[in-house]
Amino acid sequence: MQESSATVDSPDWLNAIRWTEDGLVPAIAQDAETGEILMMAWMNRESLRLTAEEGHAVYWSRSRGKLWRKGETSGHQQVVKDIRLDCDEDVILLKVEQKGGIACHTGRRSCFYRTLKDGAWVAVDPVIKDPDAIYGNN
Amino acid sequence: MQESSATVDSPDWLNAIRWTEDGLVPAIAQDAETGEILMMAWMNRESLRLTAEEGHAVYWSRSRGKLWRKGETSGHQQVVKDIRLDCDEDVILLKVEQKGGIACHTGRRSCFYRTLKDGAWVAVDPVIKDPDAIYGNN
Repeated sequence: MQESSATVDSPDWLNAIRWTEDGLVPAIAQDAETGEILMMAWMNRESLRLTAEEGHAVYWSRSRGKLWRKGETSGHQQVVKDIRLDCDEDVILLKVEQKGGIACHTGRRSCFYRTLKDGAWVAVDPVIKDPDAIYGNN
Repeated sequence: MQESSATVDSPDWLNAIRWTEDGLVPAIAQDAETGEILMMAWMNRESLRLTAEEGHAVYWSRSRGKLWRKGETSGHQQVVKDIRLDCDEDVILLKVEQKGGIACHTGRRSCFYRTLKDGAWVAVDPVIKDPDAIYGNN
C-alpha cells in the first residue's frame, strides 16, 4: 500500500483549498451563537493550520506581512467552534465565540457597522469600548 | 461652492470602497432572517451599483468574466435587505432573502456545507434539491 503524500505540514485538508496566487484564502468569522458576522480576514496555510490546532483564530495580516493571532493585543480572542469550507474550496467560515464581545478594532461588536442608506455609508452600530482603552493608548 | 465630483456611474459610496487591483470586492451573502451565511462571491463596481439599484444581488463571475445575476438560471434570486461595509472598506455584506431557500449550486441552502472533522472535510448539510432539476439538465 502506497503511503499517503500528506505530511504534518501539508495535510490533505489543507491541500484541498484553492489558495490565491499569494497563498491566501479569505476567512469569515461568525458568532457561533448569534449568527452575527463579525469580520473577514485572510489566512495563509500556516495560520489556518494553527487555527485548527490551537482552537483560536489565527489570521495572516497582509498589511504587516505576518501571522496575526486575533486578540494578541486586545484580548479579544476568537475561540473556534467550527471550521467550514465552501463549495468552491476558496472561502473559509469560522464559527467562533468572540471573547469580550468585540471583534472590530473600532471597539464595535462587528466590523460591518456601516449600512448603505440614501447613497451613503452610515454607521449604525454602537462603539462598545473606546479603542484607546482596548489597545492601551491612553 | 465646488460641485461634487461624484457622477451617476461613480458615486461617493462606490468610491469609498477599496477595490482590489482587479477592481473587485468580496461580498458575503447572509440570510437576513436566520443569520446563516449563504455564500461569498465577488463584485465589481457595476455589479455592486446594480445590486443597490435593483435590490437583487448581482455578482461578478471571475470564471466567466461577466456579470452574474444570481438566480438568472436557477430562479434562486437574492432580495437585498441591507448592504453593509466593513471597517477597512474592503468587504461587503449583503443581508438577503434567499428565494427558493437554496444559495448553492449543489442544491444546498448554503455553500458552506463542509466542516473540518478529524482532519478531513465532511459534508454535513443536506441537498435540498437535485442540481439537475434546478438547472434543467435532466
